[in-house]
Amino acid sequence: MINMVAVNEIHADDLFKEFKESSITEFFRKNRAHLGYSGKLRSLTTVIHEIVTNSLDACEEAGILPEIYVRIEALGKEHYKIKCVDNGPGIPLKHISSVFGKMLAGTKFHRNVQLRGQQGIGVAGVTLFSQTTTGKPITVKTSTGKGKVNELDLMIDITKNTADILRNEEYSEYWRGTEIDAEFKGVRFTLSERGPFEYLRRTAIANPHVKITFIDPEGRKTVFDRSNQKVPTPPIPVKAHPKGLEVDELINMAKANKARKVSSFLGVAFSRMSNARIKEIQEHVSFDLNKNPRKLTWAECEEIINAIDKIKFLAPPSEGLMPIGEKQIREAVLNIVDPEFEATLTRPTKVHSGGVPFQIEVAIAFGGNAGRNIGEGTKFELMRFANKAPLLFDAGGCAITRSASSVDWKRYGIRDFENAPMTLFVNVISTHIPYTSAGKQSISEDQNLLKEIRFALMEVGRKFQIYYSRLRKAEERELKKQILRKYSAAFAAALAELANRDEEKIKKELYVIIEEKISGMDAEEENGEELDAIPQEEIMKTESE
Amino acid sequence: MINMVAVNEIHADDLFKEFKESSITEFFRKNRAHLGYSGKLRSLTTVIHEIVTNSLDACEEAGILPEIYVRIEALGKEHYKIKCVDNGPGIPLKHISSVFGKMLAGTKFHRNVQLRGQQGIGVAGVTLFSQTTTGKPITVKTSTGKGKVNELDLMIDITKNTADILRNEEYSEYWRGTEIDAEFKGVRFTLSERGPFEYLRRTAIANPHVKITFIDPEGRKTVFDRSNQKVPTPPIPVKAHPKGLEVDELINMAKANKARKVSSFLGVAFSRMSNARIKEIQEHVSFDLNKNPRKLTWAECEEIINAIDKIKFLAPPSEGLMPIGEKQIREAVLNIVDPEFEATLTRPTKVHSGGVPFQIEVAIAFGGNAGRNIGEGTKFELMRFANKAPLLFDAGGCAITRSASSVDWKRYGIRDFENAPMTLFVNVISTHIPYTSAGKQSISEDQNLLKEIRFALMEVGRKFQIYYSRLRKAEERELKKQILRKYSAAFAAALAELANRDEEKIKKELYVIIEEKISGMDAEEENGEELDAIPQEEIMKTESE
Repeated sequence: MINMVAVNEIHADDLFKEFKESSITEFFRKNRAHLGYSGKLRSLTTVIHEIVTNSLDACEEAGILPEIYVRIEALGKEHYKIKCVDNGPGIPLKHISSVFGKMLAGTKFHRNVQLRGQQGIGVAGVTLFSQTTTGKPITVKTSTGKGKVNELDLMIDITKNTADILRNEEYSEYWRGTEIDAEFKGVRFTLSERGPFEYLRRTAIANPHVKITFIDPEGRKTVFDRSNQKVPTPPIPVKAHPKGLEVDELINMAKANKARKVSSFLGVAFSRMSNARIKEIQEHVSFDLNKNPRKLTWAECEEIINAIDKIKFLAPPSEGLMPIGEKQIREAVLNIVDPEFEATLTRPTKVHSGGVPFQIEVAIAFGGNAGRNIGEGTKFELMRFANKAPLLFDAGGCAITRSASSVDWKRYGIRDFENAPMTLFVNVISTHIPYTSAGKQSISEDQNLLKEIRFALMEVGRKFQIYYSRLRKAEERELKKQILRKYSAAFAAALAELANRDEEKIKKELYVIIEEKISGMDAEEENGEELDAIPQEEIMKTESE
Repeated sequence: MINMVAVNEIHADDLFKEFKESSITEFFRKNRAHLGYSGKLRSLTTVIHEIVTNSLDACEEAGILPEIYVRIEALGKEHYKIKCVDNGPGIPLKHISSVFGKMLAGTKFHRNVQLRGQQGIGVAGVTLFSQTTTGKPITVKTSTGKGKVNELDLMIDITKNTADILRNEEYSEYWRGTEIDAEFKGVRFTLSERGPFEYLRRTAIANPHVKITFIDPEGRKTVFDRSNQKVPTPPIPVKAHPKGLEVDELINMAKANKARKVSSFLGVAFSRMSNARIKEIQEHVSFDLNKNPRKLTWAECEEIINAIDKIKFLAPPSEGLMPIGEKQIREAVLNIVDPEFEATLTRPTKVHSGGVPFQIEVAIAFGGNAGRNIGEGTKFELMRFANKAPLLFDAGGCAITRSASSVDWKRYGIRDFENAPMTLFVNVISTHIPYTSAGKQSISEDQNLLKEIRFALMEVGRKFQIYYSRLRKAEERELKKQILRKYSAAFAAALAELANRDEEKIKKELYVIIEEKISGMDAEEENGEELDAIPQEEIMKTESE
């Protein structure tokens, strides 16, 4: 109001002259850090991450035992060529351009299945990053195994967010899978713990049924072989759970559903929604659940949500979620960090916001090669995974990191958590991981997630505590034994002179008593009793013999 | 290849049946955490952040002294109504639906001007968040000050990413500005350091020309008044700097440019690109710079980039960037934290990746109300800003946090950095801030940014060190004076007896010597000499009198 007529002010009409609409690819070209393309090493790891998660998802969906080949070749300074080949189901010709050349084209998030990729951006992001750093297309060779192979060179038309196919060849060959060849500049390969090698190593840890062959820029070949021959069960769509459901989600689902009555819509669309529960809901709402679900109003949906809040439901079923499994994690942990102690745990299924089911798997490893080797010592190590895909970046803002540091590790005997020779392994599985960014390296701090991860870590923490206090008691016992032996030698000499008996014999008798006493204490130990020094009269017994 | 004929495998054609294309709004509806809508408090702060940054940007662009009114009203449990009114330029009718109802519609990132918002997503995200939590439209009232006011109720059509206008009224009134009324559920207001109040307080700190009136849900009114009456200079587009330029950017710019020769394109499109520099480039490249810029190949652009790498250019001009200013920061810091010591610094303009100019402003405040009060003590506090907008979340993954903790504060006399009564203030200004996520709360770890922030902090760190060592020396001096005085009293008594002189007189003489000595030491101090104990002969002088 004031200054309205000031001479230097610019009118709104002029300001908006410069408005311009952008495509999503243009957006991500300008904001590539959102997709994880920031930093030379991170960018390279992101490329590998996007391609490998796509391959693993495709194999899992198709029920194929995955075999992945990754080669990183140095072409010049900060200039690399990457080849990735999988034995997956391949991509039908008409979908190739959507997968690699169009963002948000092949989203899977309407399906509620547990997959590594879930956003429909990742692998098109690889094409975008390749062309913006080299000006070249990526090459995709793919076949669904029916005798025809397609080989395409493609780029993204940035302003249109569509694929620009520069070459498309089809030839006959019986082969099945997908091969991607692409070049990248402004990236750097290192063997650091955030590099492609570590990414693939951790992928192998969390996916014991996968075989990965990796050739690094110096030509070194590493084979991460599978320890599990079981063909993965294809993920199945999971119905939303009523708890945590939001009105917006409910109304959208109701509109898209073909049921004639709200009651049948509820029964069909949600897990754990029995007739008894629907009856309970009816008792709490002011309208008839026989009404058409397409005609539900926002207020009515709110009534349903409020009713659900008051009703008890069974926990979500776990069929749709595919944990790695305690046995597999244990094998992987034993194999890789060879710890003195390990404990693994898979928690029951819970829901986070929107009625989305999730599950937490954790492992703790202590001693041996556990922890992160930092030259002059070992530091605590946290291995984060989301739907079995390793998370190597943005640890600071991640729900897993937050939960791990919220645990009072001192309670479990770990005094200096940060410097403990300990590896924590946390895998969050869900049909929808609430990432903080399109770069998918950090899970947002959902209260239910935070709580569950914390509980899981506390549970393995308690297991560790039992082991650790036993270990410490065993050490104390050994120390006491040594002291007693030392003491008894001198004591035996004195006794021998006093009682005029053979010194060696007395010493042996004393030794036997010490051994028996310590063994006796072992038994007491198990009952949780504290150790005390051996009473003097026990030793004196030998004297009276 | 193996398992190709296994019975349970699913063919690619079936897998791709479920593919579905999504709109960007659908994407963000499913991934709202990317936009900062995670957690009840954070979501509310994000709403305020998006609306206020839009208002401030608009005022700045139009050359208007901003006056902003924000009211948060509690309507029920986790249910709030927000009203924001500004005196900005208003929005022309035909652009209203783009601004509030369509993502990526009004992107400003092609313009290279320093603005808080830069992505064209934020305020449409507010509409999306409001409608997905309440099912209601937002209300926008706006006028460009020409006597017509438009009042609209609008929502976003999620599948189409377009505005759905439910009401559009136009009436006559002489008023200028924009008012937004919107409801939100599943959010929570608190006075925590990450809440709306703190957000507005810090906005006021970094924008001393802004007046903000805030009414909280309990009806308490706070006015953050402006301390600076200067109408902000509208931001001007900044040319890219040749250093840090990427091939992709260069080729895109060349294609869009109307110049007839590459040489004139370079001269027009980049800052610091004099004829002398263009001549130097010509010497390094294999082709004639008289060629048509639209016909530049990738390889030729690479040659230009390589040439630029070898040539020295002046640092980017700072005209396009608008720092808060050392004086304004000092005033704000003194006003708010009232410290015992403060130092501020604005570093020269530099470039980060893509030739984008940026500048770092820092302040250090020590003692007084500096630091974060945590009940039983004070903790170090880091206030992060990007283009003068406060960053309250995702501190863990931010370049500012990383730089601050990379400084060896012990060198500057701060032994326990984390628990020091210290506030660091860091503002990163740039025509393009490389955020890690669409939520814009964290800056990605660009090497040039990290280095500059670190240098800036080290520079104010050194200023602090000088102050702090003087302070400590002054304390030491005072201590020594006290010891000397105490010592001299006893000494005077002994001397009085020995020399048979008046004890009081000797004591006074000794006192004078001590005072003179200490003052003398002050002078020496300034020359950087270390303090030593006063030599015995100085005291003995009194004896020989």
